[in-house]
Amino acid sequence: MQNFTFHNPTRILFGEGQIKALDAHVPCEARVLITFGGGSIKSNGVLAQVQAALGHRAWFVFGGIEPNPTYETLMEAVALARDKKVDFLLAVRGGSVIDGTKFIAAALKFDGEPWDILAKQAEVHDAVPFGSVLTLPATGAEMNSGGVISYRARGDKLPFRSEATYPRFSVLDPTTTYSLPPRQIANGVVDAFVHIVEQYLTYPVDARVQDRFAEGLLVTLTEIGPQALAEPHNYDVRANLMWTATLALNGLIGAGVPQDWATHMLGHEITALHGLDHAQTLAIVLPAMLSVRREQKRAKLLQYAERVWGIVQGTEAERITAAITATRVFFERMSVGTRLRDYQIGGSSIGTLMAKLEEHGMTALGEHGDVTPEVSRRVYQLAV
Amino acid sequence: MQNFTFHNPTRILFGEGQIKALDAHVPCEARVLITFGGGSIKSNGVLAQVQAALGHRAWFVFGGIEPNPTYETLMEAVALARDKKVDFLLAVRGGSVIDGTKFIAAALKFDGEPWDILAKQAEVHDAVPFGSVLTLPATGAEMNSGGVISYRARGDKLPFRSEATYPRFSVLDPTTTYSLPPRQIANGVVDAFVHIVEQYLTYPVDARVQDRFAEGLLVTLTEIGPQALAEPHNYDVRANLMWTATLALNGLIGAGVPQDWATHMLGHEITALHGLDHAQTLAIVLPAMLSVRREQKRAKLLQYAERVWGIVQGTEAERITAAITATRVFFERMSVGTRLRDYQIGGSSIGTLMAKLEEHGMTALGEHGDVTPEVSRRVYQLAV
Repeated sequence: MQNFTFHNPTRILFGEGQIKALDAHVPCEARVLITFGGGSIKSNGVLAQVQAALGHRAWFVFGGIEPNPTYETLMEAVALARDKKVDFLLAVRGGSVIDGTKFIAAALKFDGEPWDILAKQAEVHDAVPFGSVLTLPATGAEMNSGGVISYRARGDKLPFRSEATYPRFSVLDPTTTYSLPPRQIANGVVDAFVHIVEQYLTYPVDARVQDRFAEGLLVTLTEIGPQALAEPHNYDVRANLMWTATLALNGLIGAGVPQDWATHMLGHEITALHGLDHAQTLAIVLPAMLSVRREQKRAKLLQYAERVWGIVQGTEAERITAAITATRVFFERMSVGTRLRDYQIGGSSIGTLMAKLEEHGMTALGEHGDVTPEVSRRVYQLAV
Repeated sequence: MQNFTFHNPTRILFGEGQIKALDAHVPCEARVLITFGGGSIKSNGVLAQVQAALGHRAWFVFGGIEPNPTYETLMEAVALARDKKVDFLLAVRGGSVIDGTKFIAAALKFDGEPWDILAKQAEVHDAVPFGSVLTLPATGAEMNSGGVISYRARGDKLPFRSEATYPRFSVLDPTTTYSLPPRQIANGVVDAFVHIVEQYLTYPVDARVQDRFAEGLLVTLTEIGPQALAEPHNYDVRANLMWTATLALNGLIGAGVPQDWATHMLGHEITALHGLDHAQTLAIVLPAMLSVRREQKRAKLLQYAERVWGIVQGTEAERITAAITATRVFFERMSVGTRLRDYQIGGSSIGTLMAKLEEHGMTALGEHGDVTPEVSRRVYQLAV
């Protein structure tokens, strides 16, 4: 096991009816800015529940945070928060709104040009306290301290992270997911699945607990993913999905083990160039990535084959191939295409994708830093 | 899945050499009281490492906290801390020292007679900040907020718990466990195992993640327990044991599921009456408890049999019996006796044990509250 630090102070308030608990966890005298996205929280009744729970507190709303939240939009929220003397933020929706709210919280306390938090990775020492009401299980943003923000004008998309930007609490009420479109549920399952894989499918370091936790989350997703699509009002299925997606990226399974993240980096370029959903790009890249790097990942691929998919027959090579196929079949059962051609993208894009990848400095990716541009090109080619 | 709140702000600093990290996590100007037990941390060099890491800070020591920490001893530490104007506590050792230090931290800020924290379950709103350096993996005290304190003069042993008594950090360096006597390692494995079982072996609520995490921890203990005895200097074995014991009782696997704890309650009476180690009493009571309650726990026992012990052959009754036997055999492989007679205790004690159990109000134990005195008596009888 590698040395690690694990620290996660976010309080999880889990279960049906927990939106009411906001009253106990938002300071009594707070002036609250409720942040959200396109407005689904109005039609599904979640915003009304939130406002009821806030009771007598002064609250304001800021909607319109995009799926890939932009600096431009978030700075409008910063201005509104200043104008209204807001001292608590409440993100209501999924990863994009929560990521954006982390940035608003940091920008409000930042001494200088907030863009530097992203562009210069300036350290964030303080942030306005905030919580979240999660209605879209996928990214894990509700229980971690990181975010990814885009600058429309410059075409940049950059991450940040700070001890100051953990949500104080996150409400996870599975019933708020009932009205999600199937595509968002499917994307959430794939997103969580690949988050886990990036922290698990590397090389063995005898971290038995981390491996078994990761495998437990993956097996759970294989069981409940298709059910989450077929039975949108099945409480236990949605509850298991929600808790799994949170634990997939709250730091626990990644503590003390090598991490990969090359699939994410190659996927980001596809989103940037072709506008595909983040999860769609992961479903495209991962099977190709595992195929290209099957030798480097041999030991963990065999463990994955056996413990996640129950594959114990055949030669080692056959078991690895079967595990990669099972992964692809699972994504396709979730109705997420696993090849570029499923999205009408051909091999002619690869040149541009590679140029962007190198422009972004992504030339030594993966747990060994050996995913060179040459390796990435083979992954893209295999993903056509 | 049941509704739950999960919150655990303790920072874990894990791995060889992490004692040095104290310098970054104890406030620079702190006046530190180092608390410990019998003094093994002097002979194994841990105290010297701690003092070196604290550098220029003013530090004082308080040794002699007992295996079952007593109010009398802890109040001496409170007096010393007041006298020395201590503003940070550092517990160095295992669960008893950490539990005791939680109480010292709370008592120092408590307005009134600190015994009321235990006797009247008075609410603890504030505590002196403290951290721990764990050298004995077993109780999980390093990452939770509870403690159990005895009052020698009254023969009482009472629990307390508060949001204010989470350690700020805990250092987990597996090499500090190398010098532990085999009995303490064995006890630690059994203690962690039964902590997990109390939160897992109840009835199904479709909490897939919690079940798989619990099973992952149990399987890990079955693999590494005997190795931890046979190879005291095997770093990875000790690292896996340390992280497993912490996760066994940090609130994660018990969130959203029913809990039992009847085995603990029956075990406490054996310790009180006969002075057995806590883990020894758990090894005695658990197999008997599972046998007596096999119908109430049928579904989870079958799951436990299959997923923890790989038992899939035979009738349901046979599989359950085999799983209970496997549990007993595992404890005995750890050199921990599983019957009262292994400790020269006969059935004649049962009357006194039962009287004490009822005196302590333990008349409706377990996840269903159906462990009546009659059931408890059968458990003790079967445990002879």
